[in-house]
Amino acid sequence: MRDHGGDLDRARARFGGDDWIDLSTGINPVAYPVPDVLPARALAALPTAEDIAGLADAARRAYATSLVPVPLAGAQAAIQIVPRLSAVGRARVLVPTYNEHAGALAASGWQVAEVREPDALEGADLAVVVSPNNPDGRRASVSDLVALAGRVGLLVVDESFADPEPESALSRAEVPENVVILRSFGKFYGLAGLRLGFALAAPDMAARIAALAGPWAVSGPAIAIGTRALGDTAWRDETRARLRVDAARLDGLAEWAGWRLVGGTPLFRTYETGDAASAQERLARARIWSRIFPYSEGWMRLGLPGDAAGWARLETALSGGGE
Amino acid sequence: MRDHGGDLDRARARFGGDDWIDLSTGINPVAYPVPDVLPARALAALPTAEDIAGLADAARRAYATSLVPVPLAGAQAAIQIVPRLSAVGRARVLVPTYNEHAGALAASGWQVAEVREPDALEGADLAVVVSPNNPDGRRASVSDLVALAGRVGLLVVDESFADPEPESALSRAEVPENVVILRSFGKFYGLAGLRLGFALAAPDMAARIAALAGPWAVSGPAIAIGTRALGDTAWRDETRARLRVDAARLDGLAEWAGWRLVGGTPLFRTYETGDAASAQERLARARIWSRIFPYSEGWMRLGLPGDAAGWARLETALSGGGE
Repeated sequence: MRDHGGDLDRARARFGGDDWIDLSTGINPVAYPVPDVLPARALAALPTAEDIAGLADAARRAYATSLVPVPLAGAQAAIQIVPRLSAVGRARVLVPTYNEHAGALAASGWQVAEVREPDALEGADLAVVVSPNNPDGRRASVSDLVALAGRVGLLVVDESFADPEPESALSRAEVPENVVILRSFGKFYGLAGLRLGFALAAPDMAARIAALAGPWAVSGPAIAIGTRALGDTAWRDETRARLRVDAARLDGLAEWAGWRLVGGTPLFRTYETGDAASAQERLARARIWSRIFPYSEGWMRLGLPGDAAGWARLETALSGGGE
Repeated sequence: MRDHGGDLDRARARFGGDDWIDLSTGINPVAYPVPDVLPARALAALPTAEDIAGLADAARRAYATSLVPVPLAGAQAAIQIVPRLSAVGRARVLVPTYNEHAGALAASGWQVAEVREPDALEGADLAVVVSPNNPDGRRASVSDLVALAGRVGLLVVDESFADPEPESALSRAEVPENVVILRSFGKFYGLAGLRLGFALAAPDMAARIAALAGPWAVSGPAIAIGTRALGDTAWRDETRARLRVDAARLDGLAEWAGWRLVGGTPLFRTYETGDAASAQERLARARIWSRIFPYSEGWMRLGLPGDAAGWARLETALSGGGE
C-alpha cells in the first residue's frame, strides 16, 4: 500500500500510547449522526435496484448535478476503476496531489507523467485534476476544466473535498461527455469507514463504470446512511459553517506556532513549517498525528480536532509546553 | 445488470403486495446477531492496516486455510477482479452456474466457453468451478481440483456455499500456486448487505489481488462484524446443524408438492418442478419469491424460510390451498 494519512497504527507503533488524536486525514471529525440501530434489512439483504437508485437520486440532488451518479465503495473505488475507462495510453496527473491516482494508473499499465502546471496536461489521453487539491487546496475553475476537457482524451476531476464549498464545483456545471467527476461521501460526512463515494458521468460512461464495479458495489449500511445524510440539508449547512470557523481557528494556532498557510480546504490545512519532520515529532510527543509528505521538507497537513479536549491538546503542543 | 436472485423489487412490481418472503437467494435467513451499536470508529475512521489484518486472520482460522485471505467487498468483488489476474485469453466456466463469472470475464475481453463436463475445462487459460455449485449443488473433489489445476493456466474455485459443509472445502487443502479460492461471508452469516468476502491465494497472488482491490476495500462495519462472527465457533456449529434440519424440512415440503430434488446445499435447494414458471407464479401468489433459470424449463431454487410464519405460508402455498 502506498503512503497515506490514516495510518495511525504506525504512529502508535513508533511513539507508543493509546489516546491519539488523529489529524493526519481530511475527514470531518464531527460525523453525521447515524441512527443507533440500522434497519435489519440493510445488513441482512442484498441491496435492491430500488435501494441503489434511491441513493443515486439523493446524490444527484445533493451535488446539484445533471450527470449520473454511480454509487461506489468510496472515491478510492472510483480511482481503482478510472484506469479501465479508456485504452491504456499516456496519463498526466497534476501534482503534488493524492498519490493513489498516479499509482492506480501506473499499476494498470498507463505511462504516467506527473506535471506541475495545468497547461502541461493538454494532449494527455487521460488527465487527472484534484480540485480542491489535496494537500495544497489549489482550485481549478469550471471554465478552465471545461476548456481542458476539449484538449485531452478523458478528464478525471476528483472533487473529494468539494462539499464544504459547493458553489465552485464542476459537478454543478454542464460538462463535456469525456469528463468523470469523483465525489467522496466519507470525508465531509465524517464516515470514512462506511466506504461510500460516487463517480458522476454522462449516461454511457456511467453505465460502463457501474458495469466495471459490478452488482452490489455499495453496502446496505452505506445505502441507508448515505441516502439519509445526503438529503439532510440542515446538517450540511450547519457543518459547512462549523468547518469554516474551525479551519480559521486552526490557522490561528498555526500562525502562533510560526507556520505559514500553504493552502487547504475547510476539512484540512497545509502549512509550511520549515522542518516538517521535527514538527510532526513535536506533535507526536503529544500523541497528535499529522501528515507530512515525502516530496516536501516543510509541508505539514492537519485535519480539524473534533472536540474541546482535542483543541486544548493541540494548543498546548503548539505552545511548546508539551505534556 | 445480469439476471439474479435477490430481485424482490421486480417481484413486488409484478405481483403487488408488501409482505413478501424472499426465497430467491441462498442467504441464511437467520443472520448472525450483530451488536445493536457498532463501535463509532468502525463508521467514522478509515480502517487501519491492523483492523484489516485482524479480519484476514479471523478468516484464515475460520476457513482453516494455509492460503492468504484477501478481504473484499463480497465474493462478487472477487469475481470482478478475477479477469485481471492473468493475461486475457480463453476462459472456461463449468455450467450451469452463477452467471456473473462468465459475464465478468466476457466483459473484460476474455473468450468464454461454458462447458458442462469438468474434463472440458482442461487446457483453458482460466477455468472457473463453483463448488458446491449454485444451483445444482454439484461438488468437485479436492483431488480432482488439484489435478485440474495442473492442466489450466489459472484455476478459480468459488466456494461461496462451502461454509455449511467445510470438511470437503478446497480451502483446507494444500493447493498449487495457480489456484484462487473465493469465499462469501454474507451467505452463511446471513449478512449479504454488509458486503464481505475473501479471495484466498498464495502470497504473491494475494498481493496482486489486494493491489487491484485498492486500499480500504472493505468497510469498517464489515471488519468489525466479520472479525467477530468468523471467530464465533459456537454460532457457526449451531447454524450448520440448523441449516441441515431446515434443508431436510424443505425437501419434505417439495416432495409433497411432487417436485424432485436436483441438488443443493444446506443454504438452498433446487427442484425439478416440471414447469418452473407455473411453480414460481403459484408461490408468488402467496408472496413467496423464488428463483427460476432461463436455461431450464423445470428447475426452481428455494432458500430457507427464516421463521415459523414463513414455513407456514410456504406449506399452505405448496398444499395448493392458497390464502
